[in-house]
Amino acid sequence: MRTARPLPDYLVRRFQGWKATQYAENRSWYRNLAEEGQHPRAMIVSCCDSRVHVTSIFGADSGEFFIHRNIANLVPPYTPDGDHHGTSAAVEYAVRTLKVSHLIVLGHSGCGGVRGCYDMVTGQAPELEEKTSFVGRWMEILRPGVADLPEGDEATRVRALEKGAIRISLQNLIGFPFVREAVEQERLTLHGLWHDIGAGGLEIYDDESESFTPL
Amino acid sequence: MRTARPLPDYLVRRFQGWKATQYAENRSWYRNLAEEGQHPRAMIVSCCDSRVHVTSIFGADSGEFFIHRNIANLVPPYTPDGDHHGTSAAVEYAVRTLKVSHLIVLGHSGCGGVRGCYDMVTGQAPELEEKTSFVGRWMEILRPGVADLPEGDEATRVRALEKGAIRISLQNLIGFPFVREAVEQERLTLHGLWHDIGAGGLEIYDDESESFTPL
Amino acid sequence: MRTARPLPDYLVRRFQGWKATQYAENRSWYRNLAEEGQHPRAMIVSCCDSRVHVTSIFGADSGEFFIHRNIANLVPPYTPDGDHHGTSAAVEYAVRTLKVSHLIVLGHSGCGGVRGCYDMVTGQAPELEEKTSFVGRWMEILRPGVADLPEGDEATRVRALEKGAIRISLQNLIGFPFVREAVEQERLTLHGLWHDIGAGGLEIYDDESESFTPL
Amino acid sequence: MRTARPLPDYLVRRFQGWKATQYAENRSWYRNLAEEGQHPRAMIVSCCDSRVHVTSIFGADSGEFFIHRNIANLVPPYTPDGDHHGTSAAVEYAVRTLKVSHLIVLGHSGCGGVRGCYDMVTGQAPELEEKTSFVGRWMEILRPGVADLPEGDEATRVRALEKGAIRISLQNLIGFPFVREAVEQERLTLHGLWHDIGAGGLEIYDDESESFTPL
Repeated sequence: MRTARPLPDYLVRRFQGWKATQYAENRSWYRNLAEEGQHPRAMIVSCCDSRVHVTSIFGADSGEFFIHRNIANLVPPYTPDGDHHGTSAAVEYAVRTLKVSHLIVLGHSGCGGVRGCYDMVTGQAPELEEKTSFVGRWMEILRPGVADLPEGDEATRVRALEKGAIRISLQNLIGFPFVREAVEQERLTLHGLWHDIGAGGLEIYDDESESFTPL
Repeated sequence: MRTARPLPDYLVRRFQGWKATQYAENRSWYRNLAEEGQHPRAMIVSCCDSRVHVTSIFGADSGEFFIHRNIANLVPPYTPDGDHHGTSAAVEYAVRTLKVSHLIVLGHSGCGGVRGCYDMVTGQAPELEEKTSFVGRWMEILRPGVADLPEGDEATRVRALEKGAIRISLQNLIGFPFVREAVEQERLTLHGLWHDIGAGGLEIYDDESESFTPL
Repeated sequence: MRTARPLPDYLVRRFQGWKATQYAENRSWYRNLAEEGQHPRAMIVSCCDSRVHVTSIFGADSGEFFIHRNIANLVPPYTPDGDHHGTSAAVEYAVRTLKVSHLIVLGHSGCGGVRGCYDMVTGQAPELEEKTSFVGRWMEILRPGVADLPEGDEATRVRALEKGAIRISLQNLIGFPFVREAVEQERLTLHGLWHDIGAGGLEIYDDESESFTPL
Repeated sequence: MRTARPLPDYLVRRFQGWKATQYAENRSWYRNLAEEGQHPRAMIVSCCDSRVHVTSIFGADSGEFFIHRNIANLVPPYTPDGDHHGTSAAVEYAVRTLKVSHLIVLGHSGCGGVRGCYDMVTGQAPELEEKTSFVGRWMEILRPGVADLPEGDEATRVRALEKGAIRISLQNLIGFPFVREAVEQERLTLHGLWHDIGAGGLEIYDDESESFTPL
């Protein structure tokens, strides 16, 4: 069985186009990045969703953002149990090695992972409760958020849970000793954002009012 | 302690600029994406490194790629132990729910995570061996790759390990039953790429010759 | 005679406002900049004109651009005569010490310095020809540009001279050995831009067609 | 060899964003500025350093400040020798043509130019003593300041020299006949400021006590 195949033609052509234009015009900057290493100012925890490109909405160039993307932009609780935790490793590297100044959790509308969690907890997706479901087990991180949902129709509750994913991730982040220390020493600030894909909106979480406000 | 602060002004202004131009000009597409959901054709497993933007080098629009980014673009072995595995969950969601046709592991030059693994295994970074080091524990996935390194100077061996990370991830991927099944049924192809940041190069892994070839 | 007076109240108040808001919210980034030093990706040579803020039109945050501003965004010819040359020193520091990847000369409409040069050369401002006129002597750098002006009315010719200032500066830049070397080694690219203040326009110089094209 | 290349994409997009928002919302003011010309109330002499944006810390709009930026915010002595002096030309234009009311010299912490001067004078950077070093020759303006430094460790002495650069520039400014005349006629006031990047501080020079006081 083939574990690696040639790249589809359309991607080869696009890459060659990029190299002949954007790379060629910015070769000096790419070389600088290769030689001097990265000095990103922010880490972004974003979703894998194909519709959310943080580099687009913030006009970022190469080298600006250290970006971790997982399902539903979740940060798990601090659990130094010796297992491999990809998200925790990314946060540790960003805060301790790269010393980023901002850590932004970016959620979004229509998140399939969040919807899956809602369905699982409300009994509509029993297959996600199975031990062998990686998506189900990953979405356990968000399970506590379902208890806090407001009354309302399903769409309202799911949207609230998307925002809950951001709040829970921020709470979990502050539970990492090196994150807490950096925040206390004012070397790092945390930020929570929720992006409405269809409307092109952006809402910012305010931890004092515990609410999201549109920009 | 503040767990969420306002967004820096320059990001607010950049977002507003994006909304007034790129969003405004493509509103119909964003609305379509919001209403119809995503139908990405490929999943990319890439590194968090701020210098590697797969959407740039492949000219991707919103909706094309489902992107998971972690340190050193690693996929762990299949381990359905009931714990939360962010990478495995992303792979499962892409293959089983989104039914992507391509799964691309994209490595790169100058990877800090791979370098850390090399230093750890060769005794130059004992702090990464500690149980509490998330980066160290995450890089365990790549430890078997150090045994296979060719003779040579350190730079050569670290570069070989960067490519080893891609090979090991592909091997681990095929160990997931639902990945293997999709590949066998020719619903999915796997691809391994290594990107040279400074030179703007791209090398493709061929599993028959077990080597990387420049595009 | 007082060589230093207290700061006007309105500036004190604005500074205090900045400190309580933008600084307070980004303290971590400012501290990072103070501790890690600057790593700007580009140098900008811009005019002192109060109407041209390159940080606004390019949404730049602190730390992105190393900015030299003088009258008419001029770079003098390479003249290592042991005198102090502020512009040459800034270029040297940016290219040799900071190793910026882009060097952008940004001209603009309605430039008083360029207009003064035109008036001086066409006999309308004899006072600028005097040895003691610093503005006149500085604008000597642009004098060769007047010979190349197209036929036309005065407004057309002055606008052409504004663009000539950008071309001459780029030509002078390439005459600095360390600039030429960096360009040859593809560690640095030069760029010429002309900004129309009233229309909010931006034109880019293309050295092959020797013309400016609107974005 | 290319003396001008296209603008990097991310800057094109950011500019377009600016035009669609900040420019579009203030078009009337930009048109006014273009038609009526600039009437800035103050000239600022600031450093090229990418971390110091006087328009940010003083919340300046387009048209408010005529800004000259050079390495270490230096004003050279009055020397009407017929050579081109960019800084002197900028001061002359601001005071005689624009008739600004305030002239502010803004220094800052962690200044690479000041540090270079200190290293040069104390024998730690002999390459800056070479005739061909533009940075070295430019920093000659500050050489007299090293003689006046207090006893203390290097960090203390370098910081004192940063403030010395402001004092020397103010002394040099008052040596320009048209500056002196404007100050005597109370049409112009001079101001010296030192900005602490990491702490967000601002200290003001008082010429009577010959000391700097935090705001």
